[in-house]
Amino acid sequence: MAADAGPIAILAGSDQLPVLLSDRLRRDGRDHRILAFRGFAAPETRSRADAIVDLLDVRRTQSIIAGWRPSIVILAGAVRRPQPSAFLNTFSALRNGRELAHLLAQGDDGLLRSAVRFFEEQGYRVLGAHELAPELLAAPDLYTRAAPEPREARAVAVGFSMLADLAPHDMGQACIVAGERILAIEGPEGTDSMLARVRAFRRRFSRVRVDPGGVLVKTAKHGQDLRVDLPAIGPRTMINARRAGLKGVAVGSGVTLILNQEETIATADRLGLFLVAVEPEHAAAAGRVAAGNGR
Amino acid sequence: MAADAGPIAILAGSDQLPVLLSDRLRRDGRDHRILAFRGFAAPETRSRADAIVDLLDVRRTQSIIAGWRPSIVILAGAVRRPQPSAFLNTFSALRNGRELAHLLAQGDDGLLRSAVRFFEEQGYRVLGAHELAPELLAAPDLYTRAAPEPREARAVAVGFSMLADLAPHDMGQACIVAGERILAIEGPEGTDSMLARVRAFRRRFSRVRVDPGGVLVKTAKHGQDLRVDLPAIGPRTMINARRAGLKGVAVGSGVTLILNQEETIATADRLGLFLVAVEPEHAAAAGRVAAGNGR
Repeated sequence: MAADAGPIAILAGSDQLPVLLSDRLRRDGRDHRILAFRGFAAPETRSRADAIVDLLDVRRTQSIIAGWRPSIVILAGAVRRPQPSAFLNTFSALRNGRELAHLLAQGDDGLLRSAVRFFEEQGYRVLGAHELAPELLAAPDLYTRAAPEPREARAVAVGFSMLADLAPHDMGQACIVAGERILAIEGPEGTDSMLARVRAFRRRFSRVRVDPGGVLVKTAKHGQDLRVDLPAIGPRTMINARRAGLKGVAVGSGVTLILNQEETIATADRLGLFLVAVEPEHAAAAGRVAAGNGR
Repeated sequence: MAADAGPIAILAGSDQLPVLLSDRLRRDGRDHRILAFRGFAAPETRSRADAIVDLLDVRRTQSIIAGWRPSIVILAGAVRRPQPSAFLNTFSALRNGRELAHLLAQGDDGLLRSAVRFFEEQGYRVLGAHELAPELLAAPDLYTRAAPEPREARAVAVGFSMLADLAPHDMGQACIVAGERILAIEGPEGTDSMLARVRAFRRRFSRVRVDPGGVLVKTAKHGQDLRVDLPAIGPRTMINARRAGLKGVAVGSGVTLILNQEETIATADRLGLFLVAVEPEHAAAAGRVAAGNGR
């Protein structure tokens, strides 16, 4: 059972979020421990970790967390696009390989939703990183010198409205739109792979300079549990967006994380991209109006 | 103006449909002419063509068609994924390059919808290939020895319901679903590229045998003008589906074309895949029920 005075336990997946969160808690003088998932956690996360475990070694994870008697458990960082090492030792830990297949077949967030449920059933309080460090979330704002032109603003609205319609299907945290044309919808391959795909597609047809520009739209699925999955962008997103020929990036305010915010904005400015955060439901509504007029 | 007794003019894009249609018309003893689009039309189509033009050479296309005085104009075969040669000479033909960009920015079917409108405004009767050769369309049936297991039947339903929700966005004629998880949604890159993407994704994570199997679902967008865009599958689809690790293919009955039907079925049987055609709206409704139960 959780002791109210216990430390904050960070279950650390990939990218920079666990470290950013740890920095913030350190500044606030809040005691915390990091349990890093092998094959997901970044080197810096692992170097700070109090324990490193296999993602599916449920028994070991459970016993370490129990030993810490944490006041709060936090899942930080994605565990969806593992390096192969993440799974090297995990199958031995599963009594039944089908369990995993079943979990992962439920959709992108199946595994993490189950983890949250599991910890809550054990009596732990499970929060999201954004609840302890809300400043990491994008606020409604234009972050860059470049701003969306009317054409891109329309593309942003189209993207938000399409993603809103997809949300019930546990799919589509991001898409790429040029003009009113949807060029790609993100699947489990992730944002960077989707951007690479559009880049390749455009290269193949480079003689035809059609639907130039375009935008990346990234937001949380409506009703998504942000403790489970917090959409994130960072400097790399900007670089890949530029490579894909896009004009900018729009994220849902209040539901998206800007990792390395200063560097992300500086990168966007250097590349001439815009970065804007908009309220997702307003943007989706605008998109539905635009689509209605366009047909 | 159209003369009622004139020949049928086939405006021929890619794949085998123009040839299949021509065969059918020949058997019926119906006079027809083929205008093939350079860079799209297959070699066999071009060898039968009465004229070969650049897709965007509107003036020449118009003058040839006018000379034929056709009773019916038919667009057959996609013009969405051109070989580069399709565009080599076309820009000279456009007074304004922006026109093209504008057309193509409207969505997958922007260009073809405009073409249909254009010919109708000129007084021609525009039909779809499926209206003259309805036997080319998939009928509600199981075509193969293999049949979908319950898991795949559920995935098929999930796919149809997701595509139905996407239809207003002029996106998503096809998707890949494993379990209840959507692995990919087709964009302008086409079905084969989408299958290749899932194949690559699965290879990358081949150590993790998660969400095995899966299905390709392909159908027309609800309300889609089939004269403009008739979704098609063929033997190659089966081969690529197998390479992507799928168990089978489901198409919307009455709105999807099975090219080379015998060879397609034989290929599926050889590879152990199922091929099933189902009524899209029934399948989508079943998917909504499944999704409701699943959460």
